[in-house]
This record gives sequence, structure tokens and C-alpha cells, in this order.
Amino acid sequence: MRIALFGCGRIGSVHAESVAAHPRAELAWVCDPMEAPARELAGRFGARSTADAGTVLGDDGVDAVIVASPTPTHVDLLTGAVKAGKAVLCEKPIDFDVARVDACWAEIASLSPVVMIGFNRRFDRSFREIRDRVRAGDIGRLEQVAITSRDPAPPPREYIAASGGLFRDMTIHDFDMARFLLGDVVEVQAMGANLIEPFIEEAGDIDSAVVVLRSADGALAHITNSRRCSFGHDQRLEAFGSTGMLTAYNQLPTSVRHASADHSEAASPYLTFMRERYGASYPAELDHFITSVETGTQPDPTFADGRAALVLADAANESLRTGRAVRVA
Amino acid sequence: MRIALFGCGRIGSVHAESVAAHPRAELAWVCDPMEAPARELAGRFGARSTADAGTVLGDDGVDAVIVASPTPTHVDLLTGAVKAGKAVLCEKPIDFDVARVDACWAEIASLSPVVMIGFNRRFDRSFREIRDRVRAGDIGRLEQVAITSRDPAPPPREYIAASGGLFRDMTIHDFDMARFLLGDVVEVQAMGANLIEPFIEEAGDIDSAVVVLRSADGALAHITNSRRCSFGHDQRLEAFGSTGMLTAYNQLPTSVRHASADHSEAASPYLTFMRERYGASYPAELDHFITSVETGTQPDPTFADGRAALVLADAANESLRTGRAVRVA
Amino acid sequence: MRIALFGCGRIGSVHAESVAAHPRAELAWVCDPMEAPARELAGRFGARSTADAGTVLGDDGVDAVIVASPTPTHVDLLTGAVKAGKAVLCEKPIDFDVARVDACWAEIASLSPVVMIGFNRRFDRSFREIRDRVRAGDIGRLEQVAITSRDPAPPPREYIAASGGLFRDMTIHDFDMARFLLGDVVEVQAMGANLIEPFIEEAGDIDSAVVVLRSADGALAHITNSRRCSFGHDQRLEAFGSTGMLTAYNQLPTSVRHASADHSEAASPYLTFMRERYGASYPAELDHFITSVETGTQPDPTFADGRAALVLADAANESLRTGRAVRVA
Amino acid sequence: MRIALFGCGRIGSVHAESVAAHPRAELAWVCDPMEAPARELAGRFGARSTADAGTVLGDDGVDAVIVASPTPTHVDLLTGAVKAGKAVLCEKPIDFDVARVDACWAEIASLSPVVMIGFNRRFDRSFREIRDRVRAGDIGRLEQVAITSRDPAPPPREYIAASGGLFRDMTIHDFDMARFLLGDVVEVQAMGANLIEPFIEEAGDIDSAVVVLRSADGALAHITNSRRCSFGHDQRLEAFGSTGMLTAYNQLPTSVRHASADHSEAASPYLTFMRERYGASYPAELDHFITSVETGTQPDPTFADGRAALVLADAANESLRTGRAVRVA
Repeated sequence: MRIALFGCGRIGSVHAESVAAHPRAELAWVCDPMEAPARELAGRFGARSTADAGTVLGDDGVDAVIVASPTPTHVDLLTGAVKAGKAVLCEKPIDFDVARVDACWAEIASLSPVVMIGFNRRFDRSFREIRDRVRAGDIGRLEQVAITSRDPAPPPREYIAASGGLFRDMTIHDFDMARFLLGDVVEVQAMGANLIEPFIEEAGDIDSAVVVLRSADGALAHITNSRRCSFGHDQRLEAFGSTGMLTAYNQLPTSVRHASADHSEAASPYLTFMRERYGASYPAELDHFITSVETGTQPDPTFADGRAALVLADAANESLRTGRAVRVA
Repeated sequence: MRIALFGCGRIGSVHAESVAAHPRAELAWVCDPMEAPARELAGRFGARSTADAGTVLGDDGVDAVIVASPTPTHVDLLTGAVKAGKAVLCEKPIDFDVARVDACWAEIASLSPVVMIGFNRRFDRSFREIRDRVRAGDIGRLEQVAITSRDPAPPPREYIAASGGLFRDMTIHDFDMARFLLGDVVEVQAMGANLIEPFIEEAGDIDSAVVVLRSADGALAHITNSRRCSFGHDQRLEAFGSTGMLTAYNQLPTSVRHASADHSEAASPYLTFMRERYGASYPAELDHFITSVETGTQPDPTFADGRAALVLADAANESLRTGRAVRVA
Repeated sequence: MRIALFGCGRIGSVHAESVAAHPRAELAWVCDPMEAPARELAGRFGARSTADAGTVLGDDGVDAVIVASPTPTHVDLLTGAVKAGKAVLCEKPIDFDVARVDACWAEIASLSPVVMIGFNRRFDRSFREIRDRVRAGDIGRLEQVAITSRDPAPPPREYIAASGGLFRDMTIHDFDMARFLLGDVVEVQAMGANLIEPFIEEAGDIDSAVVVLRSADGALAHITNSRRCSFGHDQRLEAFGSTGMLTAYNQLPTSVRHASADHSEAASPYLTFMRERYGASYPAELDHFITSVETGTQPDPTFADGRAALVLADAANESLRTGRAVRVA
Repeated sequence: MRIALFGCGRIGSVHAESVAAHPRAELAWVCDPMEAPARELAGRFGARSTADAGTVLGDDGVDAVIVASPTPTHVDLLTGAVKAGKAVLCEKPIDFDVARVDACWAEIASLSPVVMIGFNRRFDRSFREIRDRVRAGDIGRLEQVAITSRDPAPPPREYIAASGGLFRDMTIHDFDMARFLLGDVVEVQAMGANLIEPFIEEAGDIDSAVVVLRSADGALAHITNSRRCSFGHDQRLEAFGSTGMLTAYNQLPTSVRHASADHSEAASPYLTFMRERYGASYPAELDHFITSVETGTQPDPTFADGRAALVLADAANESLRTGRAVRVA
């Protein structure tokens, strides 16, 4: 399968490596307005580079595209790729505006598009094991879900400005994780705070939050976020059910523990960077995408999953503004 | 110090044992309308028993009283004991009605009362270590607190009916724990659910909840509650700060772990009963009370702490009813 | 049951407290040539004190004695107490000389003595759970046992001189623990070293050792010892069987863990003092002794267990001297 | 770098994959008397295959060889490759016969050979971190080392027959690990047992063992081995020093834990297969080999390390036979 990549930033590089390492895939193009880094990334994997999306979409040798460009470009690239008959793996969020997402779907729905949204955390082995065991009944009826998600360090000021806000930029992964375990969510309550970086507050955004969700079948979930975490990438999941609990706590770089007169059982800091913590989820995500395309099945998470997470982000923002619990249709 | 005990139920027995085991205390009276069990409990520790509170409060040989009777009797006993010049250790909550609590205080305030409220979890070694280390600056500025509190099994129907509801009966410990770490709380948001026992819903109460709090200095906290937990008493505390995190997770009856073809590192279920999990906190609480009385210092948690937790419970109930975040004066 | 205590040192004090706290026992006498500390200890618990063993053994009101005096006095006190019709709980080792132990037994055997040897670690909840689960078949056939036993700090020079050597003083607990799990041992191999304190080597003793054992039914065990451990009392037990493994690793004072930029999951140092680590095993040991006497059953560990551990210590010393594996009859 | 592989069995496949994945290496040849599997393996990576070692050694385009063929062929292939000017990465053990190993070295020493021995566990991240931190002084003076090494299941009867015995086949990794931490070893004591499979005893071999070592600078080490472990690949390392301890215990496939009425904190079984547990150590080993060749430095572990581990295996066998501690020159 020949794959084209839009966007050669941090996440684009991750995808390029996954494609190069996949036994049945080949990186055909890297497309980015920034020609030099696109050329550099393409060169590492024997691909061609261009700043022109039309060239890529017009190449009949391209089977699929990965959209890892800035969020505002997602809808156009996704729409164009579907119209050109390509399968699409699109990074989250689809867009910051639900109306625009809906318009996009209206335009492509009749084309039976093969579209997957890049919620890579669904492919983390630990989180997936929890989902599978919850479904298998290992903890009875699922009653509560707790998601802890803290980034090692806040992004720079410019990133915040273009991020769409904490809920659409960072929490969106957690909204999807809640839906991965709980299915549809019907109520959202949010409380936020500014505790970390003044420039985030100046940008009208928050850097810390707790969001509480109610699922369609009555279970509760809560998400804890921070833009900074001194001890690494704090990524935890807890599923509590009528007969037991499944947890996936943080991961360590080695199994080494240290004991001394000061402490015992001290480990290294948790995995610090997104690429360390979720390094294995990207190739697994890509493999699911490729296998789905090859077998003609719809990949998962779907466009609808991408939309649903965005709706929850909007509801959380409304709750933050009004102090009220917000019902989600 | 000669101590009288009001109430010979489950928690009264715990206090009686703590008094008997304390090197500087003696159990003088057990007072309860149920004469037979009062006599039985008193007999175990060489104390006298009566159904008449006046007899106890009129005994000049009694230095202090422990109020462990049903909640509706707390205010009268506490007031009477203070007027009789006794130091008082009163179980939580002071009363279900804040107005009545305020009236109680108005009546006794001028007497310089020595009153301590029985939030025994403040005397749990692990939770106290976290509080002390937070104050010592071990994790920088405190930004978020997470409290998980699940009881092993729901109480019987009759208990629920008289309990004052989840927030005033069970969460009140967690509200106090939040205040123990965070100080004053200014905003409360609550979401509840009925997932466990129909009779709880029929009683107009909830059995599962998530409550989110904002402290006066801007930090966030959340509390997770369930009335049932298959794997024991789920009692956890997490304090997240600008430079680190302190956690106290569940406790095990032994250090034994089992590995087999099915699993590895399996421990026994967590400590199941309140008396196992918090067994050591009651004597520590009593020791603090006795030492405070002996040294003429005000014991802690105070009457005001007891009131503050009740105010948070009321605010959580209002948030549950209205779906709104509730400001606390 | 009225109990007399011989020896008012560190271990004597522990026993005195256990007796005082036991609901069916009373401390009658504290007997020690050091009259002042004996009087002080006796005074704490309302007992009488004397320097004269005969007075104690001649008191018909004494039902049982605890021998916690220096090792060279054990045999005489044990023999005298048995002859006076008292039940005996004797600290380990019975004596440093197996011949003398055998002579002791020859003298008392016909009196159907009730004698228990103070291997308190058999009453540690974690180690006992492992023994019980091994017997219950939780790990199939027992194949290997690993015992780690390190003291926080070496004893003073004078203690070493009178200790009988590492194997008879410290490892003797571990020999008994091996026998507790494995039953009889038939072969012993030892390697020792001097790594910690020059005065231990000067006294002709070792401070570090590994001892390997073979049980009568073919299983292997090994014991690791050090006289010093910077991070607390290192006391671990591991039982490996054909279908699984049971471990009991070190114990922590609280469940608090700390994460920072330097480390994650750091706990406090392990329990440091013998009284912290094995605090609960002494009352359980005493309760077993008292209950056995009350019910007329032979308490366990027996005199024969005390002798067997000493035989293993002698065999280890011989292996250390000769470099050979030593068969034990 | 163009690399030829001798041996296309289990370990050969692992090396072939590591070579294929290395950015600066290419698999040139797979050489094995079994032509079909050699062809199959070569085909997967675009290499050529042959049954004739001479063809490979005569190919001037080959820079280095990996010897992963049966042990009896190692010396000839290693010698031939060195004489042909190739760098060599040779699997352990170099040979079963120390005399033959010495003769091999005598023959190649003058050629300044670049030879690395495949003790891949030195490249395990956790074990290496321990070695590095021991050297950095994190635990003061190293006093004791404990190595636990158990295979998930015994190899088949035929493998045992050709294995050279437990100590030269399996423990040899642990002897090298002991030397990795401790440096030279001067004394060996071994006790073995047959507890697992009758056919191993029938072959004159043992299936369970404890080996105790003394290092040149006086520290103690012990190794525990079993040919079967129901709960996975039991691979642990513990370094105890004057000021602390470093441990690397077993590794889990995910971070998921399960709590229920039966147990808490249960994880999946430990990583079961050698390729799961040590999957990352082979590429790290190869990378060190390639980098050493490229930079003209001697790779490590050296030929002398390979010989030293074999000498310890022989000493352990002698101790097993004689019951004596064996001095190593």
C-alpha cells in the first residue's frame, strides 16, 4: 500500500516512521507547505516531497493518505482525499467547528468513505486490554471510569493560541477514551483552573481541569488534566465495575528500583515524552488502518467517533462558561 | 482522664477499646438507651452503664465525653457536655442541619468549649504523611487532589433512610479530607448516579458520585464515591503539585503475592472492613484528643471543621439537584 | 494465666508488653540479676521483681515462664521451670552447644514438658500465609525457597563476642523458617564473608553469608544474610513451586509514594527495627503459647525444632570451615 | 556493513531480524547445512543462502559474521572468520571445552581479532542500568548480588542431550551477569537437584540449582536456576551494597492490574518467551557490535569474557560432583 503523508511536523514524523517500518506499506509522498523539512523527511524514507496537495491527490499510485497537518487544513484534505478515492487516516480533531465537521460529512457520506480518526491511545496495549476485559465481563457492569491525563510540560505560547483550547486539543483524547470504554455520553460537567502558566490564562485558555461525564447507560466517568507534570507523562486509566476493577497506571522505562536510607522502591521518572509513552500505539494504529483498507472493512475509530469527541469538548467548554451540567444530544 | 461514652453501637465499641487501651485514660461510663448492650460493653472495660445522660453529665469525676450516638442526638449531648464542663469528642456529622449546628455553636461559644470532631481519617498515618509533606513543600504548590472512597458494601435499607444521604453520611469524610489538604473550599459541583441497590434510589438517595471542588487558593479536587466495592475498602488519596505527586493507595493485609500461569503479583483483596483499614486511626485520634485536653490546647479537627464539611455536603446536594456549580461562602 | 519473665533486656520488654496486653494473661514476675531494670519493667505492668530464679520457680501461682535471658542461662532455667511444673516459652537458641541441648532434653523428656521455642517469625502473618498456602497446594510441589534476612545495623562488639556467631545468632531464625516451609533439611553448604565491620572479623565471625540447603524431599533453599542494611530490615521470603510462586517482600510504614522529576513511586525506607517489622508476631506467638497451655496441646515450634535449627547452624559453620557440603543426619 | 549469519535456528532468526532493522547493516548471507530454512530466512531479508561456509568466508563483500550455529561448530567458524578478516559476533558458549577455547585463542590472538560474545543480557536496559549505577556509586560498595533465572519450560530431550548441561547451557548467562557486575570470580559452590523432568536426570543433567560465587574483591553472589517456571520467564537481578540496593524484577506485558473479591493488583503472567523478555537486548547488542567495528574499538563482552563464564560453569560442575567449594584461578 502506497501512502502519502500531509504534514511533516512532530506527529507527521511519527507516522512516516510507522509507515516505513510496516511490512506492507511504503511512504510515497510527504506534502507540506514547508518544503525543506518535507524534503528532509521524505528523503529519510525514499519518498517524494511536494508543497502541492493536488499533485499528491492526483497520483493514482497513492492508495491512502495520512492527514497530520494543522487542524484547520484537515477538512479540506480529508474531503479532497475521499473524492480522489483514497482511504484516509486523519489526526484528531477533525476540525474545531462541529458545523464544519458536519458539512464535511454531508459532502463525503455518499462516497462510502474509508476514514479513520487518529485516536492512537485506543491502540495502547494496556488501555485496549482494559476495554477488551470490560467487554468480556471481567468486572461485571461498568460503573465508573477515571482517566488521568497530564502532559509533561505545557506547549509554547503560539501552540496554545492555535490549539482550540484545552478541551479540543488535549482532553479530546480523553473524551475519546471515555467513549471507548463507556459508549455514548449524555451529560458533561467541567471545572477548570489556571495554575501553571500565565500565558495560558492570557490566551483565554485553562491549564488544569476536571471533567465529569455521564454515559447513556448511566455510568459515571471523570477526566483529570494538567498541562504540566514534573514526573513524566501521567497517563492512567481506571475502570470500576460491580465485581472488580481494572487499572492501567503509568509506565516505567526500566524495571529498576532503588532502596537507600532515604527511600525504598524508587523507580525512574515515568516515561516522559509522548513518543516514549505511546510509541507502540502508532504502528498498531497504522496496522489497523492498513488491514482495514486491505480487507475492505471500516476502520475504527470512525469519523463519527471524531465528531463525538468534539461535541464533548464543546459541551465541556459550555459547562466551564455557565457552571452548569450540559446535556449532550 | 476519665471518659464517658455515649452510644454503644459499632463506632462506640471502637472508641471504648481505644479508651481502654490508652495508658492515661479510663472508661468511666457507657450511656445508651439500649441498656443491655451498654451494660455488656461497659462490663468489658470495668465501666458503669446507664440509659440516663444526665447521670453521666452530672458525674464530676468525668473529664471528657465521646459522643458516638445517632446523629440527631449529637447537638444536645455536645451542648450538655460543654455546659457540664466536659471536653467533647463528637462523631461526624455534628448534625444534618447547618442551622442547628450554628445554633449549637451560638449556645456554647462563650464557654470556650473544648470540642473535637471525629474525622478519624485525618489520623490515618498515610494520609497524615501526605498532608505533612504537602505542607513541607515536597510537591511544590498543591494543584490537584484526588480522593477515592468506596465502601465494601452498602449499608442496610434502614441505615440509608436515617443517613442524611450519601454526601452527609459518607462523603463528609472526604469533604473533610479535601479541606485537610486544601483548606477552605469555595465551589462545589456534583454528579450522582444509582447503579448499585434499588432501595437506595427508592429512598431518594444516590449510591455513586463524583464531586469536584475548587479551593480558596484555586486548586481543584475531586472525590469519587461508591456504596459498594467488590475488592475491599477502596480508600485512596492523591496530591498533585507543581513539582511532584504524593499518593496513598490501598492497603493489604499481608505482603504476600502470588504468581501462577494465570496471573502474577496477585495480592489478597484490600482491607475490607472499616476497622481493619482505619483501625490505627481511632487510637491516634483519641490520643490527640487526650493530649490536647491535658495540655489545654484546642484539639483539631475543630467544631468549625465539622460545620464546614456539612456545608460542602449541602452544596453538593444543591449541585446535584440543580446541575449547577454552587459557590460556598 | 500468670506468667513469669526471665530477662529484662530488649526482647524481655517485648514479651512483657505482649503478656500485659493479652486478655487472659498476667505478668507475675520479672526476674533478672540486674535488679534495677527488672524492677522498672515489673513496675510498668504491676508485676513483682527479683534477682532470684528460685523464688520465681517456687511460686505456685506461676503457671508459665518466658525465658528471655542470655543464651547460656537458657538450659538451666528451662530445666528448672519444667521440673517446677511450669510451661516454658524459651527464646532461641536453646543453647550454643547441641550436646548440652541433648542433655537438657534427656533430663526433662520424661516429664512431658510443655516447651515452645521463640521462633517468632513463624507467627508473622505474611510468612505464615505463605506456609499455609504452600501446604494447601497453591503452588504445587515446593521446589525452591529463598530467604533474605538482613539486619539494619550490626550489633555492638560485645554482643558479637557473646553471640555464638552469625549462624547461631541470626541465621538460626532463617534455618527455622526454611524448616517451617520445607520440613527436615539433609544437606548444608555455606559461604561467608567479612564486608561490613572489622571488629566482626577480629572476633572470628562473619558479617555476610549465603547458605544453601537441601531438604529431605529434595527441594533447595538458600538464605542470604547481612549484618547491615542501609534501607531497613530486609526480610523477604519466596517459595517457588511447580505451578506458581508465593513471595512476601518487605513492608512499609505507610502506603505513601512520591513522584518527582528525580524518581517515581518512591516509598519510605522499609520498617527499620525488629519491633516494627515483627511487632505483631510476638503477641501472636504468645497467644499460641497460652492457648496451647490452656488446651493441653503441645505448642509449636517445639524443643525439637529448636534443636534442629542449631544443628543446621553447626553444619553451616562446618561447611564454612571446610568448604564442603555437610550432610545432616 | 554487510553481515553474514551462520545458523538459521531460533536465535539465528532473531539476529537476522536485528540486522535487517539496523539502519547501517545489511544481511548478506544465511549459511546453514539445512538449505531450505536457510533459503527461507535469507529470502525474508533479501539475502543469499548457502550450505557452504567457505563461500561466505570467501566473500570479500562480507564485513562481519554472526555465529549462531550449534555450539560444536563455533570454534571452527570463529577461527575461519577471523582468518578471513571478518569481525565476529559469536553466540555463547564459545565451546563446551575450555581447552578447545584456549587453543582457538592461541590460533587467532596474533590477528588482533574483533570478537564479541553474545551475552545479550548485558544489553538489557534494566540490567545495564543496574551495572551503570553500581559503577556510579549509587549503592556504595557492592557486597552481594542475587540472580534469579528460570526458563518458562524445559527444552526437549534432544536439546538437553546436546546442551552441555545446565551450567554451560543456561547458567552461563548468569555467570556472565555475575561477572558483569562483580568482575572476576575466585570461588564457586554449587548445589543441584532434579525436580522437574525425569528425562533430564536420565541424561545425567540437573534441572534446578543454586550456585554461590565469591568475587576477587570479596563480594558474594548467588544464582538460582530452574528449567521450568509456570508464571513466565523469571529473570531478576539484585545488587546489594553498603548504602543501598538496586533491583530489576520481572517485566509485564502491559500495566493492567485487576482487583476482585478474590485478589487485588493481579497482573498478567510475566513475559513468557525469551524473545518477549529480551526482545530489545538483541538489537542493542548488534548495535554495539556494529558501532565497535565501525569505530575500531574492541566490542564487549570479549572472547575472554566468554572463556571466563565457561570456566565458572566447569567449576560449578566440579563443585556439584565433589560437594566442595572450588577455587578458580
